[in-house]
Amino acid sequence: MEKIEHYRTCIETLLERESRYQSQREDVESQLFFDPVRHHYQVMWVGWQGLKRVYHTVMHFDIREDKIWIQQNTTDLDVGEALVEMGVPKEDIFLGLHPPYKRPYTGYGDSVTNS
Amino acid sequence: MEKIEHYRTCIETLLERESRYQSQREDVESQLFFDPVRHHYQVMWVGWQGLKRVYHTVMHFDIREDKIWIQQNTTDLDVGEALVEMGVPKEDIFLGLHPPYKRPYTGYGDSVTNS
Repeated sequence: MEKIEHYRTCIETLLERESRYQSQREDVESQLFFDPVRHHYQVMWVGWQGLKRVYHTVMHFDIREDKIWIQQNTTDLDVGEALVEMGVPKEDIFLGLHPPYKRPYTGYGDSVTNS
Repeated sequence: MEKIEHYRTCIETLLERESRYQSQREDVESQLFFDPVRHHYQVMWVGWQGLKRVYHTVMHFDIREDKIWIQQNTTDLDVGEALVEMGVPKEDIFLGLHPPYKRPYTGYGDSVTNS
């Protein structure tokens, strides 16, 4: 349980940092979603740039059975590395944004053999 | 405050109902995000269909200053109408998924004059 709390804090720190990059477009906001009950966490851009809809997830993490899953990352930050620097072991990080067959070759958690 | 609680219940009911449509693809899950602190609520599909990433928001609502904002809806349900049937007045529903200039003509909340 302590481990999950630590992982949650790491995730929330990364997302809060990302959400501080406020858009210069007044009709676009960064939205933080923290759901500690279902363990889904993300930051989105939502709004309008003139007639163009701005709507996408910037960064998204889940916690599943004591592991962190990276589901989305459209930034240039290496979020896996950032989590490792915060003390999360590589084998507890799963790259959901890579197809399952690739995961054994990423150096991160291997959904085939670890879960 | 009671009004916000009611709106939150309406939103959660619609999202929970939507999330019950389980994917037949075993590698795709429906993810509910309920963040009652920041008042962002959504359901997403997340996973893999073979080598193809499945990653999109199905339905998304925000509550802002006592109003419900519909930010995304990729279903064939008329969610505005569904909210009205649950007792939400039309003027308290804002169609964030339509560009601002269109909103005065939708019959729903008009961000130009109401907010």
